[in-house]
Amino acid sequence: MGTGLLVTVVVGSGIAAQRLSPGDVGLQLLENSLATALGLTVLILLFQTVSGAHFNPVVTLADRLLGTRHRPAEIVAYLLAQIVGGVGGAILANLMFDTPTTISTADRLSAGHLLGEVVATAGLVLLIFALSRTGRSAIVAPAVGAYIGAAYWFTSSTSFANPAVTIGRIFTDTFAGITPTSALWFVGAQLVGAALGAVLVLLLFPNRKVPA
Amino acid sequence: MGTGLLVTVVVGSGIAAQRLSPGDVGLQLLENSLATALGLTVLILLFQTVSGAHFNPVVTLADRLLGTRHRPAEIVAYLLAQIVGGVGGAILANLMFDTPTTISTADRLSAGHLLGEVVATAGLVLLIFALSRTGRSAIVAPAVGAYIGAAYWFTSSTSFANPAVTIGRIFTDTFAGITPTSALWFVGAQLVGAALGAVLVLLLFPNRKVPA
Amino acid sequence: MGTGLLVTVVVGSGIAAQRLSPGDVGLQLLENSLATALGLTVLILLFQTVSGAHFNPVVTLADRLLGTRHRPAEIVAYLLAQIVGGVGGAILANLMFDTPTTISTADRLSAGHLLGEVVATAGLVLLIFALSRTGRSAIVAPAVGAYIGAAYWFTSSTSFANPAVTIGRIFTDTFAGITPTSALWFVGAQLVGAALGAVLVLLLFPNRKVPA
Amino acid sequence: MGTGLLVTVVVGSGIAAQRLSPGDVGLQLLENSLATALGLTVLILLFQTVSGAHFNPVVTLADRLLGTRHRPAEIVAYLLAQIVGGVGGAILANLMFDTPTTISTADRLSAGHLLGEVVATAGLVLLIFALSRTGRSAIVAPAVGAYIGAAYWFTSSTSFANPAVTIGRIFTDTFAGITPTSALWFVGAQLVGAALGAVLVLLLFPNRKVPA
Repeated sequence: MGTGLLVTVVVGSGIAAQRLSPGDVGLQLLENSLATALGLTVLILLFQTVSGAHFNPVVTLADRLLGTRHRPAEIVAYLLAQIVGGVGGAILANLMFDTPTTISTADRLSAGHLLGEVVATAGLVLLIFALSRTGRSAIVAPAVGAYIGAAYWFTSSTSFANPAVTIGRIFTDTFAGITPTSALWFVGAQLVGAALGAVLVLLLFPNRKVPA
Repeated sequence: MGTGLLVTVVVGSGIAAQRLSPGDVGLQLLENSLATALGLTVLILLFQTVSGAHFNPVVTLADRLLGTRHRPAEIVAYLLAQIVGGVGGAILANLMFDTPTTISTADRLSAGHLLGEVVATAGLVLLIFALSRTGRSAIVAPAVGAYIGAAYWFTSSTSFANPAVTIGRIFTDTFAGITPTSALWFVGAQLVGAALGAVLVLLLFPNRKVPA
Repeated sequence: MGTGLLVTVVVGSGIAAQRLSPGDVGLQLLENSLATALGLTVLILLFQTVSGAHFNPVVTLADRLLGTRHRPAEIVAYLLAQIVGGVGGAILANLMFDTPTTISTADRLSAGHLLGEVVATAGLVLLIFALSRTGRSAIVAPAVGAYIGAAYWFTSSTSFANPAVTIGRIFTDTFAGITPTSALWFVGAQLVGAALGAVLVLLLFPNRKVPA
Repeated sequence: MGTGLLVTVVVGSGIAAQRLSPGDVGLQLLENSLATALGLTVLILLFQTVSGAHFNPVVTLADRLLGTRHRPAEIVAYLLAQIVGGVGGAILANLMFDTPTTISTADRLSAGHLLGEVVATAGLVLLIFALSRTGRSAIVAPAVGAYIGAAYWFTSSTSFANPAVTIGRIFTDTFAGITPTSALWFVGAQLVGAALGAVLVLLLFPNRKVPA
């Protein structure tokens, strides 16, 4: 549900921005990024106590690497739920805006964009585990929301930074969509970024703080 | 007073946006949504210790269903105050902006918009009771403000999500207005959304945390 | 210094907005209001432990009425410092933007605007004392910043709500300026609003919480 | 890394704003300033427990003056790291946006801009040490982010306020760039502002609070 509603927020606000600010792609991204920053913050607050608010496969994988001893079956269940949620969220947004669910034609492939995804995902993984390893989980929600709000702008790729969200965004041919081919490369770059982020976590935050 | 001032914020900032950014409906909604997100946060902070900051009939009804044992007479008094406040708030905004109080001609009826209201209201109810059932009432104000700020954009209906506010917004023929017919359907969708939200609360947050 | 820097923020960001977004008064107000909301929050944080962060004569007067037993001489000193600061802040903004310090020609007088100032000031006084009387002084800074950010939009007068800032804004013939005549009427409306706000404080928050 | 990523945020979001909102420099600065405010907040949260989040040479120097007894060698190492980071951050942003790394041609020299840098840097130093001397280090991150977000607008120079960031911004001929000559003068003004800020800290916050 968390990943799904996140995609609903991203895709839905993208469609609204595209319709209400036609021809002004900068204003569209401002509207889209502010709605996502606020919505993501709220979704993390909402699901943090339910499931840890892991809406992102690379966070789940990094968590396995860096900490919690989840069993492989649990991790597979998480990943499946995230992908199913991501696709469902795109469909819900399409339905609300009376838009058909079709495969996106938005090609986003370039070397700069892939580097953008590596940077965006590395930063996201670093941020989440930096805060949790220093006992500041209570501010993860606004911090991650603020991070994504900024990363829409400072990365060239508008910071997808999440394989399940990337897959979900294939299923809408609107502002936030992405072609399957671009999505595949984006997911690859995200995995590289997540690995880089995990290495940075180990270097900068070697010790995990045990919750009191 | 809370519901009234909320409608004053929504309607007033809508009129200001419409006048200052003519012809740019996307920018208008950005201005309107940011003012509402900030204003709603402040109003909840203001009235939280006075009345629980229930500006919303469906929150009052969900509260009866999910928790507090208010007597029926109290609930009726709350609902009446919310509706009277909602209408009064629209009139105050009209007065400040030297605009006559007339019935709105803004037709907002469509299947997508009704689905938008169901989603918006379900999310609002889920958020409020998720936070209160996990002992995080202190962050309800910014979280609900952020939620509505995002929901203006990710729902197709700009997230009315409140029957008393919807009724109040009938009484202004400006940016934030809504025709009586559309309002009736919106209120119906909000009741469905609230019921769905209450079910999600029971599924995801079955236990109420007793305040220390 | 606090009142002065507040006027610097208001006037300076107004000049920047006017120059960078010529012809788009809605975008100008959005830029001006966001900068003011953020800047005011920071200024309250900065001076809260020094002087109570009273940048506003009506807050100082309401404080005398509702609570702290300041001596008349102290209050006069506060009011003088606020007015001198307000004028100085406008001059500093003019200097940074290479703009001459002249009397504003921006007439803002109308019945709707005066009602806007009454509402804006009443809300500000109510908010500040509501938070302090319920032991929540720690969130006054972001709450007041958010309030003013919203009130720029939901009041028709863009919420001056502060006699010292209003006087300071006479001394710049730019986006945020106001003619002396309009300023006089605005200050009158602000005093009415402050009295109304104080009455609401006594009705809604009759008991002061003694700090632990 | 902190200074570097800060420059990446500033330069990267500047390039994105410039490309997506061509011809609308006000909207460009709004996008750039919001991304920087959010990104800077996150970067301070991220590195606060690692290095004190000193991304700014004048903060490091003021800290030596006002408090911590760092050895000269440590301070030199900090300054070098900040400058190397600043340049590296600009290069990373250029790479992500497929833009060559060349020397900026953006002349920003004027008396008003230099006064702007003095004000911006004095305010930044005052804010950081005011919060730390009153035991409120936990809110430095959002407060500094909000301050810079506002100072983009209320200072005429868009508030560089950081010598290492200023030097880094020489190496991109895009929205956020600055010529070497302007940069030299800006750094001078920043040093004056930092000294002024340090004097204000000593006057307004003479006592350091010893952490409990």
